Amino acid sequence: MRKKYWEDLKEGERLTCRPVPFERSDIIFFAKKFDPQPFHTDEAAASASIFGGLIASSLHALAACTRVVVEAQEDVAIISGVGMDEVKMFNPVRPGDVLTVEARWSDLKRSRSQPDKGVAGIRCKVSNQRGEPVMEYGYRYMIACRDVA
Amino acid sequence: MRKKYWEDLKEGERLTCRPVPFERSDIIFFAKKFDPQPFHTDEAAASASIFGGLIASSLHALAACTRVVVEAQEDVAIISGVGMDEVKMFNPVRPGDVLTVEARWSDLKRSRSQPDKGVAGIRCKVSNQRGEPVMEYGYRYMIACRDVA
Repeated sequence: MRKKYWEDLKEGERLTCRPVPFERSDIIFFAKKFDPQPFHTDEAAASASIFGGLIASSLHALAACTRVVVEAQEDVAIISGVGMDEVKMFNPVRPGDVLTVEARWSDLKRSRSQPDKGVAGIRCKVSNQRGEPVMEYGYRYMIACRDVA
Repeated sequence: MRKKYWEDLKEGERLTCRPVPFERSDIIFFAKKFDPQPFHTDEAAASASIFGGLIASSLHALAACTRVVVEAQEDVAIISGVGMDEVKMFNPVRPGDVLTVEARWSDLKRSRSQPDKGVAGIRCKVSNQRGEPVMEYGYRYMIACRDVA
């Protein structure tokens, strides 16, 4: 695969992400390790919650979506991550859900102080198999330029 | 443990979080599953990167810190998470690092439209064992009130 540099990115261009399925066992495993709220880990407690059943930790949803976004970046010359934008959550993720990530390159800016680098965002809108919005968020990266301006 | 409601929270009160250690094997395991950037998964590639060695995925850092924050919430009547604030990243997390999470309740607001609920944030400042800042971010939750106003 041909290495991609900051100059190769196009504002608004969509990354092709594969679907993100959620299994009950994975939801419970992640939550027990990282986000042990009862509605993520315990079937009975989750049934008694406003969700009426088990839901995935938002961090699990974020991590699983990140996997497919990183795959879809192909061979981009990422130097480092520099942050994440606010995460807005709309609908919970339940066992059996399959998420679609609409990820687009955004906020492309070449660094003035370091002309061999540029910043780039990826804005993500995540929805489920019923077309309901699940979450919106963004990554921010520093990326190498091919040519020093 | 006595159940805590929205009324029991105090603006700015610190949650007592245990330290968060990072093992090389956990860093690689998490990154291979969720954030397979070479500087998170591959020792040689990481050595050639600007980091000069393996660093943890920020999502891993966020997830591992979330674990100790959730533990420190004790038995708070959380109804649901409603979002996360911007994540600012300052210094990478490396194998052997032990993070300290300074987490404080913030932005406590009772709902006007639903007087049996309130919102509450937790603002987190994370630093490493050398006192260097690692990241800052925040959670937002909806929490049950004890008394309906």
